[in-house]
Amino acid sequence: MRVKTDKEWVINEIEEIACFGKGQRGITRLAFTEADILAQEYIMNLMEQAGLTVSRDPIGNIIGHLTGQDKSLPPVLTGSHLDTVPEGGKFDGVVGVVGGLAAIRRLQDMGPLAHTLELIIFVGEESSRFGFATMGSKAMAGLANTYAWGKAKDKQGNSFKKIMSQHNLDIKQIDDASRRGEEIKAFLELHIEQGCSLEKSGNNIGIVKTIAAPTRFKITVEGLAAHSGSTPMEERHDALVSAAMIVLAVQNIGLAQSSKGTVATVGDLKVNPGSINVIPRLVEMLVELRGVNQENIIECLQDIKDEISNITEKQDTVVAIEMISSEKPVEMNPAMGKLIEQSCFTVGASCQILNTGSGHDAMNMAKITPSGMVIVPSRNGISHNPDEYTEYDDIMIGIDVLTEALYQLAK
Amino acid sequence: MRVKTDKEWVINEIEEIACFGKGQRGITRLAFTEADILAQEYIMNLMEQAGLTVSRDPIGNIIGHLTGQDKSLPPVLTGSHLDTVPEGGKFDGVVGVVGGLAAIRRLQDMGPLAHTLELIIFVGEESSRFGFATMGSKAMAGLANTYAWGKAKDKQGNSFKKIMSQHNLDIKQIDDASRRGEEIKAFLELHIEQGCSLEKSGNNIGIVKTIAAPTRFKITVEGLAAHSGSTPMEERHDALVSAAMIVLAVQNIGLAQSSKGTVATVGDLKVNPGSINVIPRLVEMLVELRGVNQENIIECLQDIKDEISNITEKQDTVVAIEMISSEKPVEMNPAMGKLIEQSCFTVGASCQILNTGSGHDAMNMAKITPSGMVIVPSRNGISHNPDEYTEYDDIMIGIDVLTEALYQLAK
Repeated sequence: MRVKTDKEWVINEIEEIACFGKGQRGITRLAFTEADILAQEYIMNLMEQAGLTVSRDPIGNIIGHLTGQDKSLPPVLTGSHLDTVPEGGKFDGVVGVVGGLAAIRRLQDMGPLAHTLELIIFVGEESSRFGFATMGSKAMAGLANTYAWGKAKDKQGNSFKKIMSQHNLDIKQIDDASRRGEEIKAFLELHIEQGCSLEKSGNNIGIVKTIAAPTRFKITVEGLAAHSGSTPMEERHDALVSAAMIVLAVQNIGLAQSSKGTVATVGDLKVNPGSINVIPRLVEMLVELRGVNQENIIECLQDIKDEISNITEKQDTVVAIEMISSEKPVEMNPAMGKLIEQSCFTVGASCQILNTGSGHDAMNMAKITPSGMVIVPSRNGISHNPDEYTEYDDIMIGIDVLTEALYQLAK
Repeated sequence: MRVKTDKEWVINEIEEIACFGKGQRGITRLAFTEADILAQEYIMNLMEQAGLTVSRDPIGNIIGHLTGQDKSLPPVLTGSHLDTVPEGGKFDGVVGVVGGLAAIRRLQDMGPLAHTLELIIFVGEESSRFGFATMGSKAMAGLANTYAWGKAKDKQGNSFKKIMSQHNLDIKQIDDASRRGEEIKAFLELHIEQGCSLEKSGNNIGIVKTIAAPTRFKITVEGLAAHSGSTPMEERHDALVSAAMIVLAVQNIGLAQSSKGTVATVGDLKVNPGSINVIPRLVEMLVELRGVNQENIIECLQDIKDEISNITEKQDTVVAIEMISSEKPVEMNPAMGKLIEQSCFTVGASCQILNTGSGHDAMNMAKITPSGMVIVPSRNGISHNPDEYTEYDDIMIGIDVLTEALYQLAK
């Protein structure tokens, strides 16, 4: 029987995991759905095959331990997530999980290390199911908002609470997932860029300086339902017309601020009653602002509110804004940045500093332990899309760098 | 036991029928749903109590017969519908059903008539469930498009075909519901205005000259799904941004043409994948144009297409337009208009000629028999809304006029 090369193993496992949640378009592996749980079980098996001791914490994060020689030393952590957005790709998150395990397998072959190594699979990184992002790493960093999470529901009306209990987890015990910073030496996350910087520069590796933070809110526009045929244009209070103006206002404010690294998106819009012969009465929109400059995000939010006031007045429709979450940009640890840079030098990879517009579990882990991110290129910068792609050769370079950095931390 | 007055009976029956499909907001009694069937059974009972012989035709239209003295004479028809839009009101359609039965009860008391009278409850008048309007009257007028209807599905994915068979109806036999014009003397429909003309003029009755016709189409915008945080504003192909531009273009074209009696509405808009952290990939919109001037509708449609071309080019998103239906405005029969006018004079009601922006079963019946519409005022012109309201005194005047007109036709 032919033993797989390291690269063959990585390709095979990423492709295998891509089968869980494979649909007509891309991969839909929302947090705590059957596809997500099956993918978790699959990786737990791989971890056990690699000789790791596997456990779950109270929010369901999977933790694989490779015990070091000196148990008094704090463990070195790496990992990422397995859940996806609806119709997502196969690399977001998975690269850090499979790549992390590949790195640990290599380190195992190199002989015993002083520190314990841990591979973490964080649950609920994407906000797609319950509206809250990076839930697993928030819980681990002691940042869980169990009050708000306790009211969260998915689109089918299933509460987060109920889904937790279906997996033998108890929302009341989520706080027990939190870990004390002094008990962890460091956290490193390997991830795809989900942007174009590396592709443009031609560098192998990005070292994250700042992770942009999302500010999310729901806008509700209330107009007046009326007959689409018999109501004159001048007498309408069409909620969708006001909503369309708001969509364009958000877009224009985002465009005006893009030089400051802030982006603005209306990701969802629902029309009620949503019938071809009724003027829309109510529209609900989900809006997100992200950037690395907190002041600029606040400025954009104010611009959007001002623009909404103008639209409301002109259209005579009622608009309500409900904040969902507002997070601050997070700086990665400079020492970890330096370590990753040195590791790139050691393995012969070209690198650059970059900011990332997408949120990551590392931003929560950074609150309790020195954290860093190793970024590999995304083709055309596309992510959260079935066309998301990263060359396997690029992933292997990322794993080389991660292995070297973990080695330096755990030796 | 106190016997109800005519007005008490009308109020009571309209309010009773309003209970079928009553929800959190208004009445949702979509075609062929349980609420619709229950309302039909309720009115069938009332018809039988009034001494009518009740039957169903092959599409499920309910027909109540009050046999006349001379069976060789063609019957005189009246009626309307019981189904509603989602979150609709209690008068649209129901006034013509309860009012029609009230008129027949009166005529019965006045002694035998030469012609048979028929009260028709047309099924599927609203397009809300299957996307096709006035299905029952189309079938009766021999205008059923069984090919297109055979492919129609509701939002839950239930096919019209399947729903028909659940009610022991067969889509293949719909053509048998068609009736020959020479076998019908005339059709009169009592209906609420769903507009403001009567309220503004203070007249009791509107006599319809032209029924506006809807042209309906689906617009699909395809952009590129991408990460909402890491994709720069300048590199996006956001389907929702293009869709918002189209919504405003439709609105502006409608406003520009409103003096010609044409209105334009985007009644529904769906975003895919519809996640707060993904730039929208696909948006589907349902658009309707209505007017009494067919040339102007065609002009509006062309304007919308031109505007879409501009948007498509600017945004680099792909737009497809799929026609759903395109109907021509329908003229009511002048002799029926004259008869209604004379009936108004006889009962002492003030009246005026008007056009109606909303579609009605009368527009199909007009293809096979002399048809007319008796219109009563709507408060604030509101319809397809829980706030839809018509004064019961106004409804009673409408019933007086209908009774007199039916008497003149059937005596």
